[in-house]
Amino acid sequence: MSYTAQQLSDHQDISDVIYAYCRAIDDNRPDDVVNLFTDECEYQYGGDLGSFSGKAYAYKFFRAGTDKIYKRSAHSVSNIEVTFTGADTAESVSYVSAWHEFHEDIANAWIFGRYVDSLSRTDAGWLIGKRRVDTMGQEDWPNQVSYMQRNVLPARSK
Amino acid sequence: MSYTAQQLSDHQDISDVIYAYCRAIDDNRPDDVVNLFTDECEYQYGGDLGSFSGKAYAYKFFRAGTDKIYKRSAHSVSNIEVTFTGADTAESVSYVSAWHEFHEDIANAWIFGRYVDSLSRTDAGWLIGKRRVDTMGQEDWPNQVSYMQRNVLPARSK
Amino acid sequence: MSYTAQQLSDHQDISDVIYAYCRAIDDNRPDDVVNLFTDECEYQYGGDLGSFSGKAYAYKFFRAGTDKIYKRSAHSVSNIEVTFTGADTAESVSYVSAWHEFHEDIANAWIFGRYVDSLSRTDAGWLIGKRRVDTMGQEDWPNQVSYMQRNVLPARSK
Repeated sequence: MSYTAQQLSDHQDISDVIYAYCRAIDDNRPDDVVNLFTDECEYQYGGDLGSFSGKAYAYKFFRAGTDKIYKRSAHSVSNIEVTFTGADTAESVSYVSAWHEFHEDIANAWIFGRYVDSLSRTDAGWLIGKRRVDTMGQEDWPNQVSYMQRNVLPARSK
Repeated sequence: MSYTAQQLSDHQDISDVIYAYCRAIDDNRPDDVVNLFTDECEYQYGGDLGSFSGKAYAYKFFRAGTDKIYKRSAHSVSNIEVTFTGADTAESVSYVSAWHEFHEDIANAWIFGRYVDSLSRTDAGWLIGKRRVDTMGQEDWPNQVSYMQRNVLPARSK
Repeated sequence: MSYTAQQLSDHQDISDVIYAYCRAIDDNRPDDVVNLFTDECEYQYGGDLGSFSGKAYAYKFFRAGTDKIYKRSAHSVSNIEVTFTGADTAESVSYVSAWHEFHEDIANAWIFGRYVDSLSRTDAGWLIGKRRVDTMGQEDWPNQVSYMQRNVLPARSK
């Protein structure tokens, strides 16, 4: 079998962490967002949002978004692929379609991205130790985004 | 392990019920929609749609939507979180991104919601005994929606 | 139990194949797309895209899309329902919400579809031997689409 019973359970636990993130973001609970990551977690959000680490800054970052910038949001995650790199460590790639309504009177906007996460099993369950966001596309996003690189194919011979 | 083999199987069964709902809605099969709920199921759809219960009313409700109002629809469900509250009972929260095209000549519209379901194992498999829909957002929805409450954070001290 | 441990592992493997397809499409890696299908795979994409089979044509088809037509894309798959038809064969239905940005200066567009797949276990793991795409809806799609048939209900008696 490709997945052991333990791995299937871990796969579900890891999905649960990613879903809990979305619910906490969309509920405007930045404390609960931050608690899904390790204290030293590295965040690479790309574009204007940049990179950062550390619990205190992460809390400010998420609070700024969920409370001050976004009036409403919906983060739908799908396509979760998990690769186990050890008994207690995993890498995951997932897709997020994130819709946002802003406090400011501007158009609602979508981001289509990927969460590229490194996770580990801790005493508090699986936590995210590194998250990179790759942006595949956007619709009406008000700020500059940094798109992920797509593969470049060689020209076809005639 | 967080999930036993039985729970992983139940988790998949519960997901299958939620997906069967979407397919039956999008196929315009209201009979099959209603059969995924218990006879006494309570539905709390919110906003103009209100709350109701009972199989007969539910059938009329879903038929009105899938046959008379919507010309086409696509209900994508993700972020399924299941909490087992007993050997044969569970609560689930899932995200739905529901796109609709109307018979009426108005703009297509999205609802971004959550299904908050209570389920139980019956002789006919897992069924939904209560469904509440929380609305996170919408795009061009033609009727009044009742948004779910987001958390209110205390003002930051200086 | 509805699902054996083997089936839960296979279910995850099958989901992984479908997700790998999306990532390869969105990354512009048509070679990797084609390798997820059997050599004789039948593709029924519907509408202007038509039906085809065979590895060589499939490669040209996907390359045309991912490299020449689409500048960016995001294929979010959800609602994966798997039916095992034997120890090494399965049918699956899944939902795709596929957002596209074009090289041409036209509006971004969504397709809301279903992948109806026949899969089998091979020496290279689970592969897709037949894929039909049913289109539930679209937003700004530049070409003619062939919509899936919805169920027709008998008129209600008075």
